Amino acid sequence: MKSVEELVASLATGRLSSTEVTSAFLRRAGLAQKLTNCVTELLPERALARAKELDGYLAEHKRVQGPLHGLPISVKEHIGMKDLDLNAGFVAWVGTKAEDDALILKILWQAGCVFYVRTTEPQTLMHLETSSTLFGVTVNPFDQSLTPGGSSGGEGSLIGLRGSCLGVGSDIGGSIRSPAANNGLFGLRPTSCRIPRMGCSAPQLGSGYIDGVLGPLSTSLDGIKMFMKTILAAKPWVTDPNLVPLPWRDEQSYLEENGRKKLKVAILWSDTVVKPHPPVMRALKEVVSRLYEVGGVEVVEWKPYKHDFAWELIASLYYMDGGEQTTELIDSSGEPWRLLSRFIVSENPYIKYRNIAEIQTLRLQRDKYLFEYSQLWNSTATGVAENGDLEGVVDVILCPASPGVAPPLDTSRYWGYTSQWNLVDYPAVVFPVTTVDPALDVLDKSYVPMNEQDRFNLGLYDGPERYLGLPVSLQLVGRKYEDEKLIEALEYITEKIGLDFKGCS
Amino acid sequence: MKSVEELVASLATGRLSSTEVTSAFLRRAGLAQKLTNCVTELLPERALARAKELDGYLAEHKRVQGPLHGLPISVKEHIGMKDLDLNAGFVAWVGTKAEDDALILKILWQAGCVFYVRTTEPQTLMHLETSSTLFGVTVNPFDQSLTPGGSSGGEGSLIGLRGSCLGVGSDIGGSIRSPAANNGLFGLRPTSCRIPRMGCSAPQLGSGYIDGVLGPLSTSLDGIKMFMKTILAAKPWVTDPNLVPLPWRDEQSYLEENGRKKLKVAILWSDTVVKPHPPVMRALKEVVSRLYEVGGVEVVEWKPYKHDFAWELIASLYYMDGGEQTTELIDSSGEPWRLLSRFIVSENPYIKYRNIAEIQTLRLQRDKYLFEYSQLWNSTATGVAENGDLEGVVDVILCPASPGVAPPLDTSRYWGYTSQWNLVDYPAVVFPVTTVDPALDVLDKSYVPMNEQDRFNLGLYDGPERYLGLPVSLQLVGRKYEDEKLIEALEYITEKIGLDFKGCS
Repeated sequence: MKSVEELVASLATGRLSSTEVTSAFLRRAGLAQKLTNCVTELLPERALARAKELDGYLAEHKRVQGPLHGLPISVKEHIGMKDLDLNAGFVAWVGTKAEDDALILKILWQAGCVFYVRTTEPQTLMHLETSSTLFGVTVNPFDQSLTPGGSSGGEGSLIGLRGSCLGVGSDIGGSIRSPAANNGLFGLRPTSCRIPRMGCSAPQLGSGYIDGVLGPLSTSLDGIKMFMKTILAAKPWVTDPNLVPLPWRDEQSYLEENGRKKLKVAILWSDTVVKPHPPVMRALKEVVSRLYEVGGVEVVEWKPYKHDFAWELIASLYYMDGGEQTTELIDSSGEPWRLLSRFIVSENPYIKYRNIAEIQTLRLQRDKYLFEYSQLWNSTATGVAENGDLEGVVDVILCPASPGVAPPLDTSRYWGYTSQWNLVDYPAVVFPVTTVDPALDVLDKSYVPMNEQDRFNLGLYDGPERYLGLPVSLQLVGRKYEDEKLIEALEYITEKIGLDFKGCS
Repeated sequence: MKSVEELVASLATGRLSSTEVTSAFLRRAGLAQKLTNCVTELLPERALARAKELDGYLAEHKRVQGPLHGLPISVKEHIGMKDLDLNAGFVAWVGTKAEDDALILKILWQAGCVFYVRTTEPQTLMHLETSSTLFGVTVNPFDQSLTPGGSSGGEGSLIGLRGSCLGVGSDIGGSIRSPAANNGLFGLRPTSCRIPRMGCSAPQLGSGYIDGVLGPLSTSLDGIKMFMKTILAAKPWVTDPNLVPLPWRDEQSYLEENGRKKLKVAILWSDTVVKPHPPVMRALKEVVSRLYEVGGVEVVEWKPYKHDFAWELIASLYYMDGGEQTTELIDSSGEPWRLLSRFIVSENPYIKYRNIAEIQTLRLQRDKYLFEYSQLWNSTATGVAENGDLEGVVDVILCPASPGVAPPLDTSRYWGYTSQWNLVDYPAVVFPVTTVDPALDVLDKSYVPMNEQDRFNLGLYDGPERYLGLPVSLQLVGRKYEDEKLIEALEYITEKIGLDFKGCS
């Protein structure tokens, strides 16, 4: 498998035609659909027509139409494509057509992309799995009894099976990172207000209590980076007033000091709410010990601050209307409630119809927590420079992407390792590290769970054999708006420690 | 009167001591208080102790403590100062002490400022005047029967009388710009999320429906610029997670092209809801004709888009709780309602207790309007460059700052010329242009008002003699986050056309 960068280079020189590449990905996506049920629709006619047009353009003008010339890209269903269905996983919205392409798709089109497949999402868009009345259950390519994660789980399975090399997902609590982690992929949740989300469909859209973010999943880290550079080079803030005018700023290193890289990584071993399974703990240990070995990287511990309370906050912010709108949407069509829809709506202990005074109280609590978390980060500084800058502050946090590898269907009930960073709005990227090895990933039978959630999660690890060969991923987290530094840090770490994960390709 | 820049330079070289300057401003503030009732408290002991400390520091170290070394700065009352009252204009909050200095004051302190006076604000903080039970009525230095504007009206009168040369105000609908305009000063409402507002007090704080912004009022444009540069140089976003990490970007010109300045100014003559009084129309005409004369500036017309609907939106967003919290705050102490508190709360036709579905609907309407306004701006482009950039797009809008000069007390009922830019979150700076001249500013008796609001405003102009010599100000508006370009444009315009307003100093 080529990296996305190599593929784009081959397309740009004409060594590969867009028609060839698009045909290959269409076939592969069809296969992925048969194996995992990850596709809502294939778009062969429009994709091949577009590919032909791009091939013709290159032949005629001897130059590319944009930085992603000829590249097929997969797209999660609730990101609007003109005149196609936009149901966001609800039966009640079937037949609703998108009036226009979402802004992000217009930019990708301008950049030369080919849209050839749309992917599944769960009922409510609010599972870390992918199960809906409309399309049934999307399963994990490694094992059909396991989940590919969600809510961008169609992307996860499709890219996991190389039916795509770069896809667009969305993330409000882990929905890009969970499928990336479960399928051994790279997935970035950018800081909010950088990537446009105009033209997407979802319940409670525009409510402003907690914002979903669009972002990329890819087979390679360079795919993630090309995506971000392409979107931001189009200056989307000129069109979308919600966005901040920050271009992708990687002209200079964020980690270089006196001519050499210097990276300070804080390790979050456990959020002290739910302890990750042995494969995740081993992956963390392996990476950390390699970081110590290679030198040039300073490693410290990250003390989690009230991550349980953070979940309470975000689980409240998701449904300030007590779930009224989502409930009406499901019930209006008579479709049955999926198990994980119940989990996050009707069984969510923090859900409540809030009046305006209660909304304000909750927002102030959130603002206070965000400030405290930012102070926690600042407290890692070792000093203050002459110009007032903090010195020796942590660059990134390395932590689990989830409390285990891809779990059995309908069991993804702990969001804390991803939703934490949605709440504080930090960019976070998931990356593959290793695969489950039953000989190494043995459970400590003497471990006593800390609480009910921990007990539930522990129960899912009924033996490492079940998860043999499954990808184990980790997560790297940066400060708000430091998406560029985050990606540079991950490039540096993977280069330094030579991650050898091969995925399933 | 020196410019703020000159004053700061004199303080930095020691040619003037901070003690001298602070003493002078304290005396002048005392005088301003006698004349206009603009002060909530003078802080002579702490200010003189601080000035002495700064003088000592300079003498000992032969360098300044920060970019505003020794400069006395005035501060609106609801911006917290540690251990001092923080009542935000409500009797019910009298005796509430600030636990800490507001973040903005910490930064100004680090920059070497001296805090010596706190200034008045109205009951509710939501008048474009300054009248409260606690401190009574603040009046205009030019005429005690007229208002200095508000809600930062204490700052307006104080700086108008040169009891301060630089003050900190806040603006959610015109509260910096109205007092700047009424007193012949410069006043900037920056784009939100650039200047920290942690540590301020106000009802509905953190509600997130429409955000107030802190910003400067000053006797000179360089004062405005120094304020912005000082705050942003401190990187407040490292402490306050609400802020966007944009430094003050003026290393290069935003208006230069091929070595010469090129500025495209759109003129908004009237918002087509309320027509400004003759002095304002004359000021606009004079500036526009000078712009044509001097050349190098392209002048076009700005067609206002639904400014009446914009007021409906923002007047709704101010009080999503139907004014419940503000009403309780006033009634709990038994203090009487001021006339303009009634105007914006109980008599506000758009006020309503909204449930969550209604909040969402309103937010979506707002998002749509913001998008449309941004499209309107983009539509002024004359073409698209090779790299996708818009070419020939309008740089700034020149418009009235209010529908007239400082009006009689209790009559400031039309916010549209300022609140418009709060809604779309565009930076806007007010500047003095001329003074009322009864010979020139004659009313066209044949004018027929467009509506009730227009009729009310027309009625306030019962004769130019009443307003003889009062400052006439205008407003320059930039695109969201283009605060730097806005200030550069105003510097260029004032330099080009040589505004000769002298104020009352």
